[in-house]
Amino acid sequence: MSEIKIPFKITGYGSYLPPKIQTSEELSSYIGKSSNWIIKHTGVKERRISEIDVDQMAAIACKEAIGDKQQPDLIINASGVPKQTIPDTSVFIQQQLGYTGIPSFSIHSTCLSFIVALNNAVSLLASNSYENILIVSSDRGSRGRNFDEPESSALLGDAAAAIYIEKTDNNIGLVNYSMNTYSEGALLTQVKGGGTNLHPQDQETKKSDNLFTMDGPQVYRMARKKVYDLIKEDLSKFNLEPSNINLVVPHQASGMAVKAYSKYGGFEESSVVDIIETTGNCVAASIPLALVMAHKEDRIKSGNLVYLIGTGAGLSIASFLLRV
Amino acid sequence: MSEIKIPFKITGYGSYLPPKIQTSEELSSYIGKSSNWIIKHTGVKERRISEIDVDQMAAIACKEAIGDKQQPDLIINASGVPKQTIPDTSVFIQQQLGYTGIPSFSIHSTCLSFIVALNNAVSLLASNSYENILIVSSDRGSRGRNFDEPESSALLGDAAAAIYIEKTDNNIGLVNYSMNTYSEGALLTQVKGGGTNLHPQDQETKKSDNLFTMDGPQVYRMARKKVYDLIKEDLSKFNLEPSNINLVVPHQASGMAVKAYSKYGGFEESSVVDIIETTGNCVAASIPLALVMAHKEDRIKSGNLVYLIGTGAGLSIASFLLRV
Repeated sequence: MSEIKIPFKITGYGSYLPPKIQTSEELSSYIGKSSNWIIKHTGVKERRISEIDVDQMAAIACKEAIGDKQQPDLIINASGVPKQTIPDTSVFIQQQLGYTGIPSFSIHSTCLSFIVALNNAVSLLASNSYENILIVSSDRGSRGRNFDEPESSALLGDAAAAIYIEKTDNNIGLVNYSMNTYSEGALLTQVKGGGTNLHPQDQETKKSDNLFTMDGPQVYRMARKKVYDLIKEDLSKFNLEPSNINLVVPHQASGMAVKAYSKYGGFEESSVVDIIETTGNCVAASIPLALVMAHKEDRIKSGNLVYLIGTGAGLSIASFLLRV
Repeated sequence: MSEIKIPFKITGYGSYLPPKIQTSEELSSYIGKSSNWIIKHTGVKERRISEIDVDQMAAIACKEAIGDKQQPDLIINASGVPKQTIPDTSVFIQQQLGYTGIPSFSIHSTCLSFIVALNNAVSLLASNSYENILIVSSDRGSRGRNFDEPESSALLGDAAAAIYIEKTDNNIGLVNYSMNTYSEGALLTQVKGGGTNLHPQDQETKKSDNLFTMDGPQVYRMARKKVYDLIKEDLSKFNLEPSNINLVVPHQASGMAVKAYSKYGGFEESSVVDIIETTGNCVAASIPLALVMAHKEDRIKSGNLVYLIGTGAGLSIASFLLRV
């Protein structure tokens, strides 16, 4: 019996890293912490700051992923924060791409949006709903930084990344997908405003309600154990050892969180994609960006087992094991 | 060959209509239009105004849909506007239900979120990813009403509705799903704020940017032709006549839009669920609410062909034909 649950292939990879770099030295005056403090507490030496909005960022990544292939028959926006409340961002991305008449919608699970969207997308391929799907994550976390919260504001950076997936007759694709949401962690990572709860029109809505806030240490404590258990469970299902995974593509939550995959997760440090030093935590774009950067550096070989994994506000954890 | 593309059954229906009623007479002083004007232009005599937030509204509908069945193994929030920007609303709904450890995420396609989520959900059943899925739409459009825009503010009302779906061995379920997004309509229906574009923290963001705005006549003109073509195409694929559809469950966009399904779409007026007079346009909750209300009124019989259809900001159109 094949290990492949749903066959698919990734035939396009694209990314956008804004040209403007903000070093931790430059950021230090805004948040009242030294560059050394920032790097020690977040692992981020520099992050990108976008001067174009999320739909334009996404379109640049999408164009690279599409290349000279035909236009996709579905576009899924899998970002953490929208361009605006209505319509959903996929519409604006389609518009920026110069397309019309392509079904599009958004999937939201904060930093895990990409993994969740990918799992939905491969099920849509399997049910013959679509043939070619474009999945894109684009986040401009710098817009939501709260400089009164040094750690989270030093973590966030801007980026977009996209992949183009298709059906295949080859024995590659989804091996295993896992997700769980632990609602007791709902208030650990938030942007409280922007919706019906603390509506922007309400007098009592404070400016800080519209900015990112995270109880980093508590998230780390709650997530580490759950992620550790998830890895053990995922691998044991297929009698795999950590050394059988060719590439681990984790969410770039923080320097410490990325390092935990080798320190506690049992993976070789060299097999864990670690881009946080130069990109920061790019919310939903972190996982696909790490995947696309690994592809561009030729770290993904035909036949490899690639393991996408991460945590997101919720608190949610998810993993997607694929053979490429 | 079976007409059923993906077998599934709806085993639970739930809804929440807030107890507080606002008549068009009561609304008229806020928007400077008479009750007669409102009813003539929108078809809405009264709408509900919720005093609890979207997650609590959703949980009431979900509890009714779950009934005494086991807890679902996936929760999809399919609402038009979130409770807050991060985390996605599904987390808060799960918390309100008293659950933890159930994967949950949100799908967003404004007023079509429910149809899109249902199509994703049945593909996830088909790929054996999940066995029982809860889909819920909860919208509190009254929070985003712009009283300077009489027509759209008179249309909006609050509601939540949920269904619980399962695999089945019977020959019932999805017959056909269609969706299209026409990005040239991106600016016809908007809440411009709440995201990275006109961020609540920006000085230039006006209060009205955070409220609902719609070019109703232009949406109607653009949508009517596209919806008409969609109906013709959907029915002709299966050699169906409008009279073969037992129940049409349309998005309650406006009184005129709902009536167009019988006036131009060829359906019997009695087969089109029309609840707009007493509920208004409940954004993403309109379609599932109309479905759940029809079920409660015993208008859905075993073996019936039920046709969910609507338009959403984007401009998107979608339809979901199912045999129940």
